[in-house]
Amino acid sequence: MTDIRDDLDATLAHVWHLLETGAADSDAPARTLVLATVGVQGGAEARMVILRGVLRDENLLHIHTDIGSHKIAEIATDPSATLLIWDSGQKLQVRLRSTLAVRPGTAEEWARVPAPSRRAYGSAPPPGQPIASPDDARHGADPASFAVIEARVEEIETLCLSSDGHRRARFRCTDGFAGQWLAP
Amino acid sequence: MTDIRDDLDATLAHVWHLLETGAADSDAPARTLVLATVGVQGGAEARMVILRGVLRDENLLHIHTDIGSHKIAEIATDPSATLLIWDSGQKLQVRLRSTLAVRPGTAEEWARVPAPSRRAYGSAPPPGQPIASPDDARHGADPASFAVIEARVEEIETLCLSSDGHRRARFRCTDGFAGQWLAP
Repeated sequence: MTDIRDDLDATLAHVWHLLETGAADSDAPARTLVLATVGVQGGAEARMVILRGVLRDENLLHIHTDIGSHKIAEIATDPSATLLIWDSGQKLQVRLRSTLAVRPGTAEEWARVPAPSRRAYGSAPPPGQPIASPDDARHGADPASFAVIEARVEEIETLCLSSDGHRRARFRCTDGFAGQWLAP
Repeated sequence: MTDIRDDLDATLAHVWHLLETGAADSDAPARTLVLATVGVQGGAEARMVILRGVLRDENLLHIHTDIGSHKIAEIATDPSATLLIWDSGQKLQVRLRSTLAVRPGTAEEWARVPAPSRRAYGSAPPPGQPIASPDDARHGADPASFAVIEARVEEIETLCLSSDGHRRARFRCTDGFAGQWLAP
């Protein structure tokens, strides 16, 4: 394992390696991320999401969601979000400050969704609605409910825990992700 | 392991068990949680925090922080936050919608902070300030910088993943955490 602690370039390279392996491998540390958004009535919301795609040249991450989920309205109200990864192997926290946009999923993307995962789209009642019993939720599999969240990474902040002093760094899109050490 | 999936009372009991073991045992799944807050300029922020105390009778969780950290200003601007836990054993996501307050840590609380952890308080420059090299960060160990975030849990939302249908439930302080099934 590369020692990334005292090297800004190696830290940034590790973040993109984490993301790319996360999108490709269901057992990778960054397969699941936390998506934090601002609630429609203020306050912060957070939930686990699955990383479905990484377009490094465009600093874009893809997450799939049902068009009826609460986060769609939250993103419409405030598109500034944070994606959070914890990489236990490197004792590395990665915060990805991102601007989110939502678009319908394409037919090609829908074709790549595994059959069991498709059932989550277009279920009734919509996600988060009260029901009398878990048995009252009906599966969907409706491509019209399949949406893609595109997260454009604006800033990456890393915190690497170490017994000889934590390392914190920030990388901003505006200066080409050059990297800056921060007090931990 | 108790099957909590179809039982609201068992789900709620499991959440508090998770929290109480998290505060007591450094290897427990809820030892680390995600704290999501609203940024001072809007947008959502998120970071890992350590659960330091649970007062179930008051629905209160305790988290320690340096008084100079960015989250102090965020909490002053909008105290409505979410704490997020992922319990991989139960495939259970727990969202704790909470109202945060910050107070100075007491001398008794400071006495219980392990010596290596004390170094994080009162370091210079303050957390998040640019530095030229990681070597420029100096440790602190200043009890005047030691603060406690008290998170009052207003609402608990659980999502239990299962191949025979996910279970989602909500428990609100306003009705004594009676519990309500939601569409997943």
